[in-house]
Amino acid sequence: MRTDKKTLIVFSGDLDRALAAFIIANGAAAMGDEVTMFFTFWGLNILRKAKKVKTQKDFLQRMFTWMMPRGPSRLGLSRMNFGGLGAMMMKKVMKQQHVMTLEELIASAQEQGVKMIACTMSMDVMGIKKEELLDGVDFAGVASYLGEADEANVNLFV
Amino acid sequence: MRTDKKTLIVFSGDLDRALAAFIIANGAAAMGDEVTMFFTFWGLNILRKAKKVKTQKDFLQRMFTWMMPRGPSRLGLSRMNFGGLGAMMMKKVMKQQHVMTLEELIASAQEQGVKMIACTMSMDVMGIKKEELLDGVDFAGVASYLGEADEANVNLFV
Amino acid sequence: MRTDKKTLIVFSGDLDRALAAFIIANGAAAMGDEVTMFFTFWGLNILRKAKKVKTQKDFLQRMFTWMMPRGPSRLGLSRMNFGGLGAMMMKKVMKQQHVMTLEELIASAQEQGVKMIACTMSMDVMGIKKEELLDGVDFAGVASYLGEADEANVNLFV
Repeated sequence: MRTDKKTLIVFSGDLDRALAAFIIANGAAAMGDEVTMFFTFWGLNILRKAKKVKTQKDFLQRMFTWMMPRGPSRLGLSRMNFGGLGAMMMKKVMKQQHVMTLEELIASAQEQGVKMIACTMSMDVMGIKKEELLDGVDFAGVASYLGEADEANVNLFV
Repeated sequence: MRTDKKTLIVFSGDLDRALAAFIIANGAAAMGDEVTMFFTFWGLNILRKAKKVKTQKDFLQRMFTWMMPRGPSRLGLSRMNFGGLGAMMMKKVMKQQHVMTLEELIASAQEQGVKMIACTMSMDVMGIKKEELLDGVDFAGVASYLGEADEANVNLFV
Repeated sequence: MRTDKKTLIVFSGDLDRALAAFIIANGAAAMGDEVTMFFTFWGLNILRKAKKVKTQKDFLQRMFTWMMPRGPSRLGLSRMNFGGLGAMMMKKVMKQQHVMTLEELIASAQEQGVKMIACTMSMDVMGIKKEELLDGVDFAGVASYLGEADEANVNLFV
């Protein structure tokens, strides 16, 4: 176990929880920690490209991905979203307060070398293909997560 | 602290979060780790028997348990459930992708010796009785959880 | 790392999740552990004073805080809240079962020396001012949380 390694499972695809996860990840990386984020289930939506990508999927997978938000700009809040109005309000306040946007936090995490892993089993279940996710994302399963977590001293499930 | 011990608090009773918890638990057990899952609040519903069990409860407890899902087959998704349609869709895709069902994951966890503890304080609050839960489940409180967590190197709250 | 230190990030402002967090915090403190709770996003509402406090805010911040619950007595459940009816029912059963209320758990945590930190960045985003939060609460950012977590052996995200 190393005191300079952290892992986060990002299960949630809500804007507020994604912000919390990336603020922690960037904070830890800025302090010199090695950080691994493991994206699973709804959390995969955070990594999706905003543009539609042509893919081969069966009907149910197509339905699922069609109904889910493509990327950080389309995420909603876990509470008080009111069809996107709440998310819009929060982004506006964040701008006024000079807080980084989720898009900026993701870019900063990548620049700081935060490792982002997409859970392949969840990708199969949600019908999300590799080419739909941000460049630089790795792909692995639960065994890989456990290996990383065994080395870290802080492991969170968001 | 041992690097071969993990604990999970399963607070949520959503199908998707339950799947995530049991995939981690099974993965860790398969790698030789000792795993303890501590079920509390809505998470207790995951352990309920599908059949109705006759019990002595007062009115409010009866109301609560009547409104909550009995067992893994009746759980909904935390997002996009649409009255059960989302859960049905996800189960269908999981079958197509040869991913184990939650019922199979629970059985596998039990076979692998994953320790499942139901939080007795939550059981009192939710009105859930011992005989309503799966055989093989243990019963304990927060002190017991903390004792287990102190021995583990990965502790998650799902 | 010390085996007698725990941290909790309290992200959620739901009554049930707040109860879980404070039951763990009080349990650990009772066993002699040093406990730090870090309140962020919706979790800040748990620490709000029930009385309205006069503050200087701009329009959006005023909207946000006006729509969010002021303090533990006004929180709802994450599931089956039914406009507050579910929360009322749960509180009633808790009373019958002689379980401490959230207000009592917070007071007990303060008496036991549990350190409560409000995340200053979230306060800016949610428009919550220092004078609106309980006396005795500290104020800090993510770096402070990471410093505390590095010393603890159990770190949860609720």
